[in-house]
Amino acid sequence: MTVRMGVLGAGRIGQVHGSAIADVKGAELIAVAEPVEAAAKAMQAEHGCDIRTIDEIAASGDIDAVIICTPTDTHADLIEQFCRAGKAVFCEKPVDLDLARVKACLGVVAQTKGTLMVGFQRRFDPDFQALRAAIDEGAIGDVEMVTLTSRDPGAPPGDYIKRSGGIFRDMTIHDFDVARWMLGEEVETVMAAASVLTDPEIGRLGDYDSANVILRTASGRQATITNTRRATYGYDQRIEVHGSGGSASAHNHHTNRVEIADAHGFRRAPLQDFFMTRYRDAYAAEIAAFVHAVESGSVPPTTGDDGLRALALAEAAVKSVDEERVVRISEILG
Amino acid sequence: MTVRMGVLGAGRIGQVHGSAIADVKGAELIAVAEPVEAAAKAMQAEHGCDIRTIDEIAASGDIDAVIICTPTDTHADLIEQFCRAGKAVFCEKPVDLDLARVKACLGVVAQTKGTLMVGFQRRFDPDFQALRAAIDEGAIGDVEMVTLTSRDPGAPPGDYIKRSGGIFRDMTIHDFDVARWMLGEEVETVMAAASVLTDPEIGRLGDYDSANVILRTASGRQATITNTRRATYGYDQRIEVHGSGGSASAHNHHTNRVEIADAHGFRRAPLQDFFMTRYRDAYAAEIAAFVHAVESGSVPPTTGDDGLRALALAEAAVKSVDEERVVRISEILG
Amino acid sequence: MTVRMGVLGAGRIGQVHGSAIADVKGAELIAVAEPVEAAAKAMQAEHGCDIRTIDEIAASGDIDAVIICTPTDTHADLIEQFCRAGKAVFCEKPVDLDLARVKACLGVVAQTKGTLMVGFQRRFDPDFQALRAAIDEGAIGDVEMVTLTSRDPGAPPGDYIKRSGGIFRDMTIHDFDVARWMLGEEVETVMAAASVLTDPEIGRLGDYDSANVILRTASGRQATITNTRRATYGYDQRIEVHGSGGSASAHNHHTNRVEIADAHGFRRAPLQDFFMTRYRDAYAAEIAAFVHAVESGSVPPTTGDDGLRALALAEAAVKSVDEERVVRISEILG
Amino acid sequence: MTVRMGVLGAGRIGQVHGSAIADVKGAELIAVAEPVEAAAKAMQAEHGCDIRTIDEIAASGDIDAVIICTPTDTHADLIEQFCRAGKAVFCEKPVDLDLARVKACLGVVAQTKGTLMVGFQRRFDPDFQALRAAIDEGAIGDVEMVTLTSRDPGAPPGDYIKRSGGIFRDMTIHDFDVARWMLGEEVETVMAAASVLTDPEIGRLGDYDSANVILRTASGRQATITNTRRATYGYDQRIEVHGSGGSASAHNHHTNRVEIADAHGFRRAPLQDFFMTRYRDAYAAEIAAFVHAVESGSVPPTTGDDGLRALALAEAAVKSVDEERVVRISEILG
Repeated sequence: MTVRMGVLGAGRIGQVHGSAIADVKGAELIAVAEPVEAAAKAMQAEHGCDIRTIDEIAASGDIDAVIICTPTDTHADLIEQFCRAGKAVFCEKPVDLDLARVKACLGVVAQTKGTLMVGFQRRFDPDFQALRAAIDEGAIGDVEMVTLTSRDPGAPPGDYIKRSGGIFRDMTIHDFDVARWMLGEEVETVMAAASVLTDPEIGRLGDYDSANVILRTASGRQATITNTRRATYGYDQRIEVHGSGGSASAHNHHTNRVEIADAHGFRRAPLQDFFMTRYRDAYAAEIAAFVHAVESGSVPPTTGDDGLRALALAEAAVKSVDEERVVRISEILG
Repeated sequence: MTVRMGVLGAGRIGQVHGSAIADVKGAELIAVAEPVEAAAKAMQAEHGCDIRTIDEIAASGDIDAVIICTPTDTHADLIEQFCRAGKAVFCEKPVDLDLARVKACLGVVAQTKGTLMVGFQRRFDPDFQALRAAIDEGAIGDVEMVTLTSRDPGAPPGDYIKRSGGIFRDMTIHDFDVARWMLGEEVETVMAAASVLTDPEIGRLGDYDSANVILRTASGRQATITNTRRATYGYDQRIEVHGSGGSASAHNHHTNRVEIADAHGFRRAPLQDFFMTRYRDAYAAEIAAFVHAVESGSVPPTTGDDGLRALALAEAAVKSVDEERVVRISEILG
Repeated sequence: MTVRMGVLGAGRIGQVHGSAIADVKGAELIAVAEPVEAAAKAMQAEHGCDIRTIDEIAASGDIDAVIICTPTDTHADLIEQFCRAGKAVFCEKPVDLDLARVKACLGVVAQTKGTLMVGFQRRFDPDFQALRAAIDEGAIGDVEMVTLTSRDPGAPPGDYIKRSGGIFRDMTIHDFDVARWMLGEEVETVMAAASVLTDPEIGRLGDYDSANVILRTASGRQATITNTRRATYGYDQRIEVHGSGGSASAHNHHTNRVEIADAHGFRRAPLQDFFMTRYRDAYAAEIAAFVHAVESGSVPPTTGDDGLRALALAEAAVKSVDEERVVRISEILG
Repeated sequence: MTVRMGVLGAGRIGQVHGSAIADVKGAELIAVAEPVEAAAKAMQAEHGCDIRTIDEIAASGDIDAVIICTPTDTHADLIEQFCRAGKAVFCEKPVDLDLARVKACLGVVAQTKGTLMVGFQRRFDPDFQALRAAIDEGAIGDVEMVTLTSRDPGAPPGDYIKRSGGIFRDMTIHDFDVARWMLGEEVETVMAAASVLTDPEIGRLGDYDSANVILRTASGRQATITNTRRATYGYDQRIEVHGSGGSASAHNHHTNRVEIADAHGFRRAPLQDFFMTRYRDAYAAEIAAFVHAVESGSVPPTTGDDGLRALALAEAAVKSVDEERVVRISEILG
């Protein structure tokens, strides 16, 4: 069986998913919906797909599933529309910046018995999967402490930041998801600190660019997340999990494996530039997992509930910074 | 000039300092005071020094300076006694577990115009000094985020834990000092999380074995500290400082530099076993710095105030765990 | 313009090139020729290409270029046939195991003004290209000493070894090409040592499994090559170039970037299993370079002459082992 | 029992051994013999030893053993003199540059039943010992191929080179000894290549600065040695041993463990500057081993025969370069 797909939105991430579909066996890109004509045509030229409107795709008999890559504030509506239209839905995180809206949307998904996968591509990274597999095989015993380092090479434009929901909802949200995955137990409390260190403009927009978070589960497992919006040496993405029997670390990706030695020392290349390069294999594996779930009728590996819980952690972090105290997830999720 | 020294206490750390004195030019070990006869004689045999009582050392005309390696609850009294006796004093951390007692003791030091150096040996580690020097040379621009990883190979005995003042005052205190050194700015707020994960006995003693801390300065610089009492792979001691222009990391010390490759992968040796091995060079450099301060009449590189401030951070961490909130250092130090 | 291609031979390496063509923009796989029906049909199913005979491909008006992936003893004949048919030719190394036959074949290429690229995929590996680029940018000054480590995970079957021309012509030939590329100057003398250490059967077949070679240029630059047919930890492929100003090294590819620390030490994953995984990107870049040469009418980056010279070095190595002396390339190439 | 020692020669290496004696329990430096008065007095000041003539030391009843650190052309005579005087002798390599003279000297050692240890300090390096121990424990199965990389930071002065016996006898000799140690089987054949690449003056003095050697044992084990007299990044000292079950490598020593990441990449410190720093621990362990052999009356771990065999390999390498052929050790040693 081939899963016939539509992509909603042909921006940067829409193109990433378009290419991922082309690489996945059993998936075919049928149509793209995109208001910017040049972007739509570029996608058509590259993948030989149709250009249709969103409503046309929802009504298309030759489309089984859609990838939602439109702006965040359209996600929840589109998820509902396509679940009602009987299409399987893959949606880029977040479902919505507002937790109540997310809950309502997931209600519609449940009601329509829809298939919804939320895009947390890091779970599909081959290195992170190898790390998780090592833990599952008992290589480090019981998980105790998780340390996540996640630094962007540079901040997004001010316009993006304004609509982003802030660093915790926009950037840390991926780390929250990875922390949940690695902790293997739900988070109970959150505490966070945040600063503006790289660009005062970010502060004027009401956001932060540098943050640290401590998560704690009921049994006392802990995770720390350190984030900054600026790393001069590339896109810094590290995971370390410490357990009763040892530690497991996933190291960074350099742009090549050459090392130069001279009178100044030994020099390796900077890290890969950003997520589209760093997680190229992860994006392909993520779409393959979605296609597999659609084909087999199974629950996708990252669900609406995962999206909800990561957002709740972001909400708790914001509250912790504002109120300078430990915040319980139960305060957020009820 | 030779600085003639006495060592008070010939336990594990007393022996470390005895050997350090032997390695430092310009220092000579004259006498040791130690109630356990065997320990005192071992020191005498190794270094050819006298055995005297503490009071005899205080009264000795041939002793310029002492190294206090006795139990913690004697430190403050001994500092006062020896400052009054006109001897320069090096005291292992902490001055006392009680902040008020520390302040009173430092008052006596000031009043007697005494020389007091508090033992934070990590500041004298060659790698950490190279890291700090790189920062001072501008290699990473302005310091923004400090990440300290510090894991002991195993927990101390219950008896030790009972008298230790708890993980923050006993173990994290070294990281608090390093964080201050690396941040280059005083800490304003502290938040901390703590768990019992490695041994329930530690919990029964009212202590924790796993902790994370976030420190924040007035300008928004942050430091995180992650501590555990058990690392199966050795003594884990890492520093990473992230700045506006880059990052600097000090890596761990393995027991050797051999790597074995076979069908299971590539294997390097575990880390050095504990602080006496890992910081052997640091202890020697620390004593050399003390000797230099005594010789030159200059202020020692780590003072009583450094001891006080690190202890205040520990106090704040305890309070943060207890009250589940951000604690200001001003609440502690007034 | 699209370069329309035929693949001759659908064995292991033919499939690699088929997939590479699919990944290269401006290239299209039109037909495959392969006597084993199942293999031909698999290629057709994967890439939607025709199945034709070799002669049909030679006569096809809709084919511009061919990739020769047939057994070695057919290479020279096919190169001649396709050059005469006016097709651009990419041929897997070697052109032939017999140097005279290679020379004759290259004569036909020249006479027909044909385009011939010989497959030395390592030159297209991104890491090795980064290393070569660093040298070109002056990062290590003048090249002095090249060190190549090249170890297969396991020996090929006896049947393969019989027809392979021996380790120097079959395995070291890639290192000879890389050595020429890195030395930047033609080799003048060769000395080699060879042993049977991994499997006596290899010795019974008249071949070796372990070899070391020293190459020397007129100006005194040297290269060493160390080869074995068995590395338990995967496919070992390293280059180090030492120059007047420094050294540049290209490190191995592990199967992932996870490191596990426990009481036995720190463990990373084995290396990638073999050339089809290790050089996947290189194969794609190699075909892209061929397509570019065909499109632009330029000389391919690795020519018949490169194939001839690498084979001459292999010939000299064999002679050096047999006669236990330094062999001049002029003895081989005249 | 304390081994009472004399040091002959207070130059650079004499000072290294003087300090080593001070660090070794059970050894005491009684006297130094050194014609340069300032050097002798410096040694006396540092270690509190007597200054005596060589003949006085030979006649001293309070001296059990001597360390010969005088110029090479005096070694053989002094070994004979002190063996006849009944002192245990440690002599820096080589015993002599002339093989016949070495043999004659070893004859005297045998005749007098003297104890002679020849200084190959690398065998006592903790990393190399860990590597050898891993092999002995079966970590890599049977040894097959040894790869030694040994590069000096810079060439010695012309005057030194003139008297050195050439790069193979002066520099490679250490690698010859390590190769023998790692191969675990005597070398049967030698082939070598040598060039002048770093400084034409070295060529004018009749020496080389860049060399590669291949050693082969009777069973087919091989070792390669790559040497240069100039490495801009420090003193490069690496060993890799490849076996039937895996590979073991000893990595280089950097001056510290700090890594700086910025827009240009990741940078570690250069290597330690030269042998006195790199092998500091090895020199101490070497003297401790000598002292142990003297105390216990056992055969020292590196004997006159080891010195002879390393020199024979150097001789063979010279002959191989001169005659452009494989040289059998039996041609040299008879």
